[in-house]
Amino acid sequence: MSLIGRHLLSIDSLNRAELEELLAIAKRLEPVAKRQMRCDVLQGAVLANLFFEASTRTRMSFHTAFARLGGAVVDTTGFTFSSLSKGESLEDTARVIAGYADIIAMRHPEEGSVAQFAAPINVPVINAGDGAGEHPSQALLDYYSISKEFERLDKSIDGMSIAMVGDLKHGRTIHSLCKLLSLFNNIKFRFIAPDNLRAPASLIALLKTRGHEVSECDSLAAGLPHSDVIYATRIQRERIQGGEEMEGYGEQFRINAAAITRHAQPDTVIMHPLPRDSREGAFDLATDLDRLPQLAIFRQADNGVIMRMAIFAAILGVADRLEAHFAPLTLYRPARLSDHDADFYTFD
Amino acid sequence: MSLIGRHLLSIDSLNRAELEELLAIAKRLEPVAKRQMRCDVLQGAVLANLFFEASTRTRMSFHTAFARLGGAVVDTTGFTFSSLSKGESLEDTARVIAGYADIIAMRHPEEGSVAQFAAPINVPVINAGDGAGEHPSQALLDYYSISKEFERLDKSIDGMSIAMVGDLKHGRTIHSLCKLLSLFNNIKFRFIAPDNLRAPASLIALLKTRGHEVSECDSLAAGLPHSDVIYATRIQRERIQGGEEMEGYGEQFRINAAAITRHAQPDTVIMHPLPRDSREGAFDLATDLDRLPQLAIFRQADNGVIMRMAIFAAILGVADRLEAHFAPLTLYRPARLSDHDADFYTFD
Amino acid sequence: MSLIGRHLLSIDSLNRAELEELLAIAKRLEPVAKRQMRCDVLQGAVLANLFFEASTRTRMSFHTAFARLGGAVVDTTGFTFSSLSKGESLEDTARVIAGYADIIAMRHPEEGSVAQFAAPINVPVINAGDGAGEHPSQALLDYYSISKEFERLDKSIDGMSIAMVGDLKHGRTIHSLCKLLSLFNNIKFRFIAPDNLRAPASLIALLKTRGHEVSECDSLAAGLPHSDVIYATRIQRERIQGGEEMEGYGEQFRINAAAITRHAQPDTVIMHPLPRDSREGAFDLATDLDRLPQLAIFRQADNGVIMRMAIFAAILGVADRLEAHFAPLTLYRPARLSDHDADFYTFD
Repeated sequence: MSLIGRHLLSIDSLNRAELEELLAIAKRLEPVAKRQMRCDVLQGAVLANLFFEASTRTRMSFHTAFARLGGAVVDTTGFTFSSLSKGESLEDTARVIAGYADIIAMRHPEEGSVAQFAAPINVPVINAGDGAGEHPSQALLDYYSISKEFERLDKSIDGMSIAMVGDLKHGRTIHSLCKLLSLFNNIKFRFIAPDNLRAPASLIALLKTRGHEVSECDSLAAGLPHSDVIYATRIQRERIQGGEEMEGYGEQFRINAAAITRHAQPDTVIMHPLPRDSREGAFDLATDLDRLPQLAIFRQADNGVIMRMAIFAAILGVADRLEAHFAPLTLYRPARLSDHDADFYTFD
Repeated sequence: MSLIGRHLLSIDSLNRAELEELLAIAKRLEPVAKRQMRCDVLQGAVLANLFFEASTRTRMSFHTAFARLGGAVVDTTGFTFSSLSKGESLEDTARVIAGYADIIAMRHPEEGSVAQFAAPINVPVINAGDGAGEHPSQALLDYYSISKEFERLDKSIDGMSIAMVGDLKHGRTIHSLCKLLSLFNNIKFRFIAPDNLRAPASLIALLKTRGHEVSECDSLAAGLPHSDVIYATRIQRERIQGGEEMEGYGEQFRINAAAITRHAQPDTVIMHPLPRDSREGAFDLATDLDRLPQLAIFRQADNGVIMRMAIFAAILGVADRLEAHFAPLTLYRPARLSDHDADFYTFD
Repeated sequence: MSLIGRHLLSIDSLNRAELEELLAIAKRLEPVAKRQMRCDVLQGAVLANLFFEASTRTRMSFHTAFARLGGAVVDTTGFTFSSLSKGESLEDTARVIAGYADIIAMRHPEEGSVAQFAAPINVPVINAGDGAGEHPSQALLDYYSISKEFERLDKSIDGMSIAMVGDLKHGRTIHSLCKLLSLFNNIKFRFIAPDNLRAPASLIALLKTRGHEVSECDSLAAGLPHSDVIYATRIQRERIQGGEEMEGYGEQFRINAAAITRHAQPDTVIMHPLPRDSREGAFDLATDLDRLPQLAIFRQADNGVIMRMAIFAAILGVADRLEAHFAPLTLYRPARLSDHDADFYTFD
């Protein structure tokens, strides 16, 4: 498999065959993700899980994925890295960490810093988010989530339509997912945003060049109907009140039960990268959707673990022998993880 | 065993049979706690160890317990959880974490928050302390400690007398232990506190309803004699100097060598939840007791690991096969862990 | 082996036979450090990795070493330990932690505090740095690094010459390494420093008492020629600008390509404890040396993991059975960890 030993810095570095290979590995790991099996294929391996910026859940997701494959995880948490504050270059830090770990996951607040860290070393580095830059494992878990929902619905990604709603200008999640989906055929992208927050022209051009249909509008009524997937993004009320850029954003772009009832079909999958802002007055994805089985947001988060397991297995070159390391996991296991799990998403 | 798959949020949720079941599991795990055996019954399992409030030792105790059973631990430390600061509800956080872990230990500064976190999910949650609320594993380790000391002394919990000294108004440790002991028979509770810090009337009423003897006094001379156990609580000098509530508290309530010599028997077990304040001028448990074999305070802390192992084993449904996963642990092991260990508490 | 069960608080506690024993264990662990083998000899063991002072890399190095031997690690990070802030004595904290762990690594900002922590307990404590005090594992990894470089160069430590440059007054790294090397024969120590930063007279006296040759000078031209090893120390520009003590320090003491070309031989090994300050205007080890194969600074860091594995194995009494716990580690493994690795330092 061609991912062996490679850095995963950007979704741009993957082709469709590699995406499908990751998907296939993830499927094979479902018994582990469902806690029916344990797997110790990474026994003896060490992950350096470097979070120069706090992101508790992404860090936990990488940690869990590596641990569920039997590996050991060395974490750093918090905003500072003591050596860097003493004037050490990022390159020197990388060369030292390469001496500890077999693979590195790294988040950093500055765009480009993860690539800078990865450049001088041969130990594989996974970009876990670098500011406004990339977060490829998020796009991959979204891809895996769409695939799983579509498998249930007997749909395929080729030819699908996806409505993306919210701050399409800044969201790296949306940009990465668009680029990933652009590797498939005949996708219909519907971008729903106020004028100030429209998707970058360069992204739209790229999608069109690759033969996809792109439409832009500024209302849910125009953009949601006939979508296979609705992807909402996190909207920060602070930014709306603060910056003029957010002018025009408001309740009319909010995905809630009324909007879904009016504009979507019962099998339209509703996605969101989480966290969502549930505070009074926030315009984020509404909690009145919480009982809809097509709300896939927590399944997305769950899929983060399995996709990260697949990434680790692919890059470390152990994908060919996963099953040989399976053994039954005989612990208490709830049929449903939470009150959100739909009938079709149980562990039994 | 009826604890399988259940949350452990409050000591109130346990009956006497369940207490005794946990005690029996803990006893079977003693070879692991004594580091004579290792056990890998939780291999492949993941604990999310969520400390929204710093409590280094409680966190380490849960972590150690899970690790000594062969499981992997994903820790969060520090006061903030990055998603919550973005407006995520505690329920959403819980639904996401449920996708990572097989079991969750959680501390949070706000009373009721752990129960709120546990409500929407089916992955078991252990309350590791929620502000003024509950801390059931502390009461359980105290129970286990009393049982072990009494085994040595050939005493039984039914019919025992226990003197509790200090801030009986606020201490959740004392309240939980009283409720736990109330499931036994004919306990003699002696509450020693100044008027401002007396135990809540509701607690006293509960104990009396369950048929126990409760007496209150405001001096060690009146309360300590003929006690099987003296349980001192941490007294914070800051609170004494600051708040009027602490008025009346002082040196006269301090458990030290002179008080023990004068008012207790040689086999009275002395307990304290730790940490104790050893700074100049503190009124906490005195260090001049440190060479007394009946001072059980560090044995209590040690028992935290074994009781938490028992809790994990019971809730995750592996208690029936612990011994099948034992193997000798052949490392250097000191006969006594510290200078505090009495003759009867060695590893040989 | 005589290190079983002992604290490792200072390099002074080791004799030459013990040094050589540690070296021999480290050599046997090379297949693990090179990631050709995994080893689970510490399965079931728990390390408490207590960092009361931030030192991300030292913490990660200890963690990695323990994990690569199959053990579980309970970490504390950050500057505060919640119990200590409540007035708990360091001795009480130690007695509690002794109940969790089989071995403890500890860093603390105050000199003497690690010894104070270790005094009341029998669980072995490794000093991972106590302020201006000791950091014995650093000296040991430096010793291991010199040995490995000399093996390649067919040189021996007895009779070697070493030039030490920089702040020789405060650097605990330098002091500890000098004391370690003093256990060998006929070392030629060359101390290069401005008058204000000369090595302590007591250290020089000790080295001379043990029969070594010590010379002091204040220029690279005088001190570097004919050295087998050049050991540069981290120089903090802040301290130079701030304190008068640093007066006289500057560019003329900086080890860079020009200085090496002019004053050293091609086989002179260049060392530095890292991190080095690479910011504009810093006087630390120059990056124009980065392509020289004799620059051993990252190999030093790598050797930290293997030497710490050896320390754990020796103290926990498992050194006699390492190989019995080896199994092939069949992951992707780069031939060279980073762009710094010389031809003679590959994993193949």
